[in-house]
Amino acid sequence: MLDYLSLAALAAVVREGSFEKAAAALCVTPSAISQRVKGLEERVGAILLTRGTPCRPTAIGAKLCAHMEQVRLLESEVVHDLPGLAGQETGPHTVRVAVNADSVSTWFPAVATQFAAETGALLDLVLEDEAHTAERLRAGEVLAAVTADPTPVVGCRIYPLGVIEYVAVASPDFLGRFFDAGVDAAGLRRAPVLRFDRRDELQSRWARAAWGTEISSAIHWTPSTQGMLDMTLAGLGWSMAPLPLALPLLDSGRLIELPPHRRIAVTLYWQRTRLTARLLDRLTDAVRSVAARRLAPVQAPEQLPGHD
Amino acid sequence: MLDYLSLAALAAVVREGSFEKAAAALCVTPSAISQRVKGLEERVGAILLTRGTPCRPTAIGAKLCAHMEQVRLLESEVVHDLPGLAGQETGPHTVRVAVNADSVSTWFPAVATQFAAETGALLDLVLEDEAHTAERLRAGEVLAAVTADPTPVVGCRIYPLGVIEYVAVASPDFLGRFFDAGVDAAGLRRAPVLRFDRRDELQSRWARAAWGTEISSAIHWTPSTQGMLDMTLAGLGWSMAPLPLALPLLDSGRLIELPPHRRIAVTLYWQRTRLTARLLDRLTDAVRSVAARRLAPVQAPEQLPGHD
Repeated sequence: MLDYLSLAALAAVVREGSFEKAAAALCVTPSAISQRVKGLEERVGAILLTRGTPCRPTAIGAKLCAHMEQVRLLESEVVHDLPGLAGQETGPHTVRVAVNADSVSTWFPAVATQFAAETGALLDLVLEDEAHTAERLRAGEVLAAVTADPTPVVGCRIYPLGVIEYVAVASPDFLGRFFDAGVDAAGLRRAPVLRFDRRDELQSRWARAAWGTEISSAIHWTPSTQGMLDMTLAGLGWSMAPLPLALPLLDSGRLIELPPHRRIAVTLYWQRTRLTARLLDRLTDAVRSVAARRLAPVQAPEQLPGHD
Repeated sequence: MLDYLSLAALAAVVREGSFEKAAAALCVTPSAISQRVKGLEERVGAILLTRGTPCRPTAIGAKLCAHMEQVRLLESEVVHDLPGLAGQETGPHTVRVAVNADSVSTWFPAVATQFAAETGALLDLVLEDEAHTAERLRAGEVLAAVTADPTPVVGCRIYPLGVIEYVAVASPDFLGRFFDAGVDAAGLRRAPVLRFDRRDELQSRWARAAWGTEISSAIHWTPSTQGMLDMTLAGLGWSMAPLPLALPLLDSGRLIELPPHRRIAVTLYWQRTRLTARLLDRLTDAVRSVAARRLAPVQAPEQLPGHD
């Protein structure tokens, strides 16, 4: 049997970032935390934490923390079924979930609200590009993920959620400067473009699908949904914006959709570990019901060139 | 003399994330990229890249990339001064800067716009908590940073920019549920709170300064400026919001400021490497002029307990 007192100390250091804060969270002294982690490292025979600001888990440390998360989730079940144990709880349970930034800026807050109101549990959102959230799930760092990857992760159940549409937009001023004779492939190879991060291929996909061209290498990188929208409004470049955020700006004329008015549809999926856990069931219900209201329905896959 | 063809290949793999994309960016074959990186590793006598999705630099690889960034910046100077060389440029120069998320969601887009319009250069924004952007600078990963840390980094010049004020806010519905008899210390120890990430201490600082209490351990974590605001609006918890974003919501009554209406002032600084480089000078000008218009002026330091 693993020593869960020590595991809890390890998990607290990783969650809080330092021995001092972990001690405060668990209401013990920092030296107690340090002894527990050290004892665990001796028994495991490996370093579990990189000491620093913040302290980070090693690969083995992360595995133990992921295990601890799952044990905690199962524990929250037992406590729920045996109200007599409730006094022993240390507070509401926290569920760690990977979500892409555009979802957090659009439909996911409604999920959080519904879930928290129904269960009293807490959410720990980890931001990850929608094409890569599944990696976090595979690594056991999160219990569920909003992902664009339809490949089921081993040990997980997968649900299609709906489609988030992206629209190619620019400010009227930007269009005047870079496309005064109209949008075309030559212009797209020259005009500055905004990208979220290195993993963000939406702009390239759109340019290939709509105009059969590569995009300019004049790229401003801005890993923030709101920041990217603001920079598009300010005329720094064109970009692909989530339709729900772009719509009011298109209506008011502050943004203009680039012809040929082709949109990129990204299908989002919900993947959750198969653990039977009431909290994960309720979170899944909240995700699916909000997605059904807020995302476009999943259609037959579009045959976009380069859409892989 | 270092082999800059190989260094450029290394930097491209780190920037683009894979050998294939680096090859496309440099218009060579992936095997040429692979040979150059391998050759460099043999000469340096160390592994420079962790092969994966994406490829990441090792500590030594990151040092070489940081050096490459600085050489590129200096090169952009030479090309600017000797227009005859301009044909040899591979395109506009990209300046990598660390900025905190709240700045990217508020005043930094105006900086990007001014800088890009004046210089034609590109920006690569790296998101980092305002208390830790300086670490990126110290590590040589960025050439400049918006930071809350007034300690000058060795080899850098520092400029105070102004103050971003944070206001404690909640939705009317949330206040009714958790503070129906008014906000007090006991309520703050119970009421759910939103935090950006583990490094975000604003909520704790406010509660200590305003009410002399620790905050509840019922924390929803949401590393997104907009997501946090949306979740506050939805009544998931109270939070500290940047005043520029909170103001319209306070005016319309969708958010309410928690008494005693005390605000946390975070002074932001601009740190830039001392390299004499026109692009960094212009970026510094843009940062300082936008900050002067958009941030509150720097005042004598407030003596907040726990404000360290």
